[in-house]
Amino acid sequence: MAGFGDRVIERTRALGHPLCVGLDPYLDRIPSLFRRGPMQPQHPDTAQAIEEFCCRVIDLIAPDVAVVKPQVSLFERLGWRGWQSLERVIRYARAAGLLVLLDAKRGDIAETATAYAQAYLSGDSSCGVDAITVNPYLGPESLAPFMIEAERAARGVVVLVRNSNLDSSIYQSVSTAAGPFFAVVAASLAKWQDRLAGEMTGWSSLGVTVAATHSEDTERIRRALPHALFLVLGYGAQGASACEAVHGFRRGPAGLEGGIVSSSRPILFPTTFSDVGAGNWEKEVRGALVRTTDELGAAVA
Amino acid sequence: MAGFGDRVIERTRALGHPLCVGLDPYLDRIPSLFRRGPMQPQHPDTAQAIEEFCCRVIDLIAPDVAVVKPQVSLFERLGWRGWQSLERVIRYARAAGLLVLLDAKRGDIAETATAYAQAYLSGDSSCGVDAITVNPYLGPESLAPFMIEAERAARGVVVLVRNSNLDSSIYQSVSTAAGPFFAVVAASLAKWQDRLAGEMTGWSSLGVTVAATHSEDTERIRRALPHALFLVLGYGAQGASACEAVHGFRRGPAGLEGGIVSSSRPILFPTTFSDVGAGNWEKEVRGALVRTTDELGAAVA
Repeated sequence: MAGFGDRVIERTRALGHPLCVGLDPYLDRIPSLFRRGPMQPQHPDTAQAIEEFCCRVIDLIAPDVAVVKPQVSLFERLGWRGWQSLERVIRYARAAGLLVLLDAKRGDIAETATAYAQAYLSGDSSCGVDAITVNPYLGPESLAPFMIEAERAARGVVVLVRNSNLDSSIYQSVSTAAGPFFAVVAASLAKWQDRLAGEMTGWSSLGVTVAATHSEDTERIRRALPHALFLVLGYGAQGASACEAVHGFRRGPAGLEGGIVSSSRPILFPTTFSDVGAGNWEKEVRGALVRTTDELGAAVA
Repeated sequence: MAGFGDRVIERTRALGHPLCVGLDPYLDRIPSLFRRGPMQPQHPDTAQAIEEFCCRVIDLIAPDVAVVKPQVSLFERLGWRGWQSLERVIRYARAAGLLVLLDAKRGDIAETATAYAQAYLSGDSSCGVDAITVNPYLGPESLAPFMIEAERAARGVVVLVRNSNLDSSIYQSVSTAAGPFFAVVAASLAKWQDRLAGEMTGWSSLGVTVAATHSEDTERIRRALPHALFLVLGYGAQGASACEAVHGFRRGPAGLEGGIVSSSRPILFPTTFSDVGAGNWEKEVRGALVRTTDELGAAVA
């Protein structure tokens, strides 16, 4: 069975662009056509509204996108009903042929990390996804349960290494003898990159976050992890261009390749008005999607 | 309303010991009297079994303990039914007079972190707890939504700073110009310590993790954060003694104070056999609890 890295690269090659759409159902931005009542987090209608919103987005983007990235916190905010909706959205997306990268940013030690790994990466789980984002703060071995489960089940793991929010530099770029702190993290992942190597495309099922806004850092991470999949953050909303977003990519058979570029709000919420009609909202989402995939497609061509 | 720090310290003063019991319902260790069938993660009975186990533990410890710390991953493993059980366990613990510190290790940026903060620290949430553990890797400002919500609702935030698992040192103790990496994190939290200052006991509702196994690191963190509440890890199972566990505490009106000391498995699973009868299991849990509180009580006396 092809690993996550292989599946991502084969699909993005076929589509001609590396866009990954973030499924971020911010309660206050959900268009009025999906809203029910005051959207109180504890009300059952609210979870249903965000579920319908996400599924409709999936309908609109599935033919043209490789990966969706649901943001767990926005479902978790709604309690167990939010989890029920998240599980349904995950299944809906996978049934539509999308790869699901769950933006969970989990991280814990030993048996506890194993529970998270099994919840998301094992075959028997109701929240099973293709890959998950994880946080390395507890040490390289705290990531092992995720890597082992990913290897076993042909799934992927994306480690937070370099983020694009402004103040992440305050910790991630602290100088150490081995370079900035994030480089220490990146270097320690080389063994997992190799263990999760892709047999078909050469791209690993180990992913790492890189910031489109910090090209030099991206180059450094690429040198440390030549075959890791990049989850590129900071494109669009945070000001980076499409060319900056694919800075760490390499020439492949169908253009530049080596990762996915995340965009969420510009596609999900293309207008600042939430009281847009159904037809108009769909048209605007499709329009934003086409503009974005065209722009990223040109950057990798 | 008294802050989390004040409530913890007042209660631990009254009890005479700083024990915090971790609620870690590991599926394979749940005693046979709670088990139903093969404990498959997706089976509804499984979530109910861990819920009953946790509630019975709460019954047994509530009169003698200040804080319980449910480990989210072990509930999340069971999907939305696990979350439903977690919400009930949280409410059960709070109704029994316990403070609930949710071991969620969440961390994200901006609006996303706000969703997590609201899910756990706001008044309107079905998962509302007294405090939550958070991961700082995304930068000091990624913690702001948790701190702001904690301040507003008189709750607490415990930041992962120094952990006790062996290889956490590989990242957390990397040398920087400002000392080990964890010291950079600790120093950046001083403003939150002050903003969440306790008006009654002087102890902040900002907490940080420290490792009982690394006394020098604990001293360094105490110097950086003189009023922060310590969540002490590594006592018991990981080999640290009770005296080592309270190393960063200070003399108060009723003995050494300044944090809570976590212990989970030695209390929840006092025997290695899961097929112990109900009466015996309860007796052994109570026995383990009394031994632990006696030991910690002697260390702070």
